Amino acid sequence: MTPFERRLEACQNRLADVGADLTVCFPSPNLTYLTGFAESPSERHLLLFVPRDGDPVIVAPAMYEAQLAALPIADLQLHCWADVDDPLERVDRVLSSYSLEESNDVTVLVDDRMWATFTQDLRSLLPDATFGLASTVLEPLRIRKDDVELAALRRAGDLADRVALEIRERGDELIGTTESELTNEIDRLLAAEGGDEPAFETIVAAGPNGARPHHHSGSRRITAGDPIVLDFGAFVSAALEMGVGRYPGDQTRTIVVGDPPAEYERVHETVRNAQQAAIDAIEPGVTAGSIDRAARSVIEDAGYGDAFVHRTGHGVGLEVHEPPYIAAGNDRELEPGMVFSVEPGIYLEGQFGVRIEDLVVVTDDGVERLNDTPRGWETGR
Amino acid sequence: MTPFERRLEACQNRLADVGADLTVCFPSPNLTYLTGFAESPSERHLLLFVPRDGDPVIVAPAMYEAQLAALPIADLQLHCWADVDDPLERVDRVLSSYSLEESNDVTVLVDDRMWATFTQDLRSLLPDATFGLASTVLEPLRIRKDDVELAALRRAGDLADRVALEIRERGDELIGTTESELTNEIDRLLAAEGGDEPAFETIVAAGPNGARPHHHSGSRRITAGDPIVLDFGAFVSAALEMGVGRYPGDQTRTIVVGDPPAEYERVHETVRNAQQAAIDAIEPGVTAGSIDRAARSVIEDAGYGDAFVHRTGHGVGLEVHEPPYIAAGNDRELEPGMVFSVEPGIYLEGQFGVRIEDLVVVTDDGVERLNDTPRGWETGR
Repeated sequence: MTPFERRLEACQNRLADVGADLTVCFPSPNLTYLTGFAESPSERHLLLFVPRDGDPVIVAPAMYEAQLAALPIADLQLHCWADVDDPLERVDRVLSSYSLEESNDVTVLVDDRMWATFTQDLRSLLPDATFGLASTVLEPLRIRKDDVELAALRRAGDLADRVALEIRERGDELIGTTESELTNEIDRLLAAEGGDEPAFETIVAAGPNGARPHHHSGSRRITAGDPIVLDFGAFVSAALEMGVGRYPGDQTRTIVVGDPPAEYERVHETVRNAQQAAIDAIEPGVTAGSIDRAARSVIEDAGYGDAFVHRTGHGVGLEVHEPPYIAAGNDRELEPGMVFSVEPGIYLEGQFGVRIEDLVVVTDDGVERLNDTPRGWETGR
Repeated sequence: MTPFERRLEACQNRLADVGADLTVCFPSPNLTYLTGFAESPSERHLLLFVPRDGDPVIVAPAMYEAQLAALPIADLQLHCWADVDDPLERVDRVLSSYSLEESNDVTVLVDDRMWATFTQDLRSLLPDATFGLASTVLEPLRIRKDDVELAALRRAGDLADRVALEIRERGDELIGTTESELTNEIDRLLAAEGGDEPAFETIVAAGPNGARPHHHSGSRRITAGDPIVLDFGAFVSAALEMGVGRYPGDQTRTIVVGDPPAEYERVHETVRNAQQAAIDAIEPGVTAGSIDRAARSVIEDAGYGDAFVHRTGHGVGLEVHEPPYIAAGNDRELEPGMVFSVEPGIYLEGQFGVRIEDLVVVTDDGVERLNDTPRGWETGR
């Protein structure tokens, strides 16, 4: 069995467990997870049908036929359509082949990212069906990473770490560089270290720009005394036979060139302690929300509660942001194999921001960090 | 009135025309069209509510607050939420402010690209509402480009043309270059000419690779006698005061370095004639399907009907692929201001492919081409 055949079978078993009849995926990480096929969403019908009983089917534009026929999934049926055909007629034929239109009590789980235009199509073809989300069956599978996935995530972590260390060691050499120039340099280093492409828009936020968690790098020149938030990572490919799976790195360090501004050291130490408190709290069986609380308590106790404006972390896998979300009130229990970021921050408008982020994997009895470079603000070799 | 205030008002008028109560947009070209705000879809609730009666509201993560507050839309209300808040509670409050929950007969039009996870949320909050697609009201607005949009599309066309001409003139200098290298060179030239970024993955498909319409450039080296399909364009920004709007170029030329293979000249001439026949057929009032027919007839008559595996064209605007689709059976009538591609092709598996593409705009009495470089296969200066 190939990894994709195993995942499809697990999806079918889950459908039976929850009493649903069919999952329909759209170009998305779910489709990539189940088939190893990666394509961007578009206005053309490209849908994977995974029935509880029966063979999976892909309805796709004819231009993908050769690529899809090569996927290592023995029972996958292909229904390709040309631009001169009506794709809805193909979809209808697939639904008929599963005899869903005759059944009274059909539950269809659609890809969480499926565009409304396609869910409306499915609703019109199955007007009496109950609709739910594919994550009901796929999230429990995707949230626990297997060994191939963990190996890729470890490589992505090491890769980001090498670049983070290199930038930190440059220290005062960074003075006079613009944020955009440093962003390009980081992206160049990520590629040179073997990364596929940046996993998200690399953030270089200097001085007061650091107070915006999602700052877009701009023309500001780094000045002596600037704290600099550096948030980046690259995708690396997992070792899957004939199929695609890319896993991201995602780490943040906040460094200072020259002497830090007043109050800075106290804020940095608070964030660092908050991050450590969160990581110390991680083990199977505790809730995601309790990890957020562990970080947030440290920051609140130091008097910066209002300045920690985001959740403590997010899962990573085929998506850079995916469950589990390490957020207030999330009572999801942690399980071995879950991978997520731990990234508390303090943002002082008009002054600076500090964020420190590592990816971690939950182990059988605790936690393993996927990033491990210095977490202080000091720079230079 | 700013362009965005005008568009929002037009959207509200359309809602009244079709008897719908509310449009809800998601990060997508619809959101950009209505507000000038551009962001990628994510798992975080970021929704624009445009009611038939009342002020438009954006529910968004707090990190976007400053950016959204600066949008040039006087009546736009902002409801920002932090990660510690429940975004659904904000959505519920907005719906209540429109008194939709009390009404019996509510119709909500959701963004065609809204993820199922968000439409499911809206359905759970408005269980008795009828749901439709936002394109019902927005497509008739977006499909006819205004002067600002046409100016941007003309610039994008000129820009792509300059690069197309430069590559064609290099002629035999291209021999020995890999597809990927030429792709990088085209992307570099597009940027050097002032383009924002490639509007889609630049296609360089040499020799037999040209038989795949959506080939990804690879390591194949261009060889004497290779036909080369070159399909590319860059985004350029429209001149909108304080708001974003990017419009793409999209042209294709097929050129040959050295002497073309047997049968090539006949195929090239057929595609060229098909493209001209389609363009000659364009005027207000004729159907999109009739333009496809005009191109397809020429190719069928030459005996290559089975080798023209895609539609004749697609609209372009904020999206690289949008209505009107120039496809068999599409009875949509052309109107002045519509912009679309005319790109017939013939694909001979194992041998080569030919595609010739221009963007055009429908005028009051005919058509204007946005691309105008030579359409033959000959290269060199």
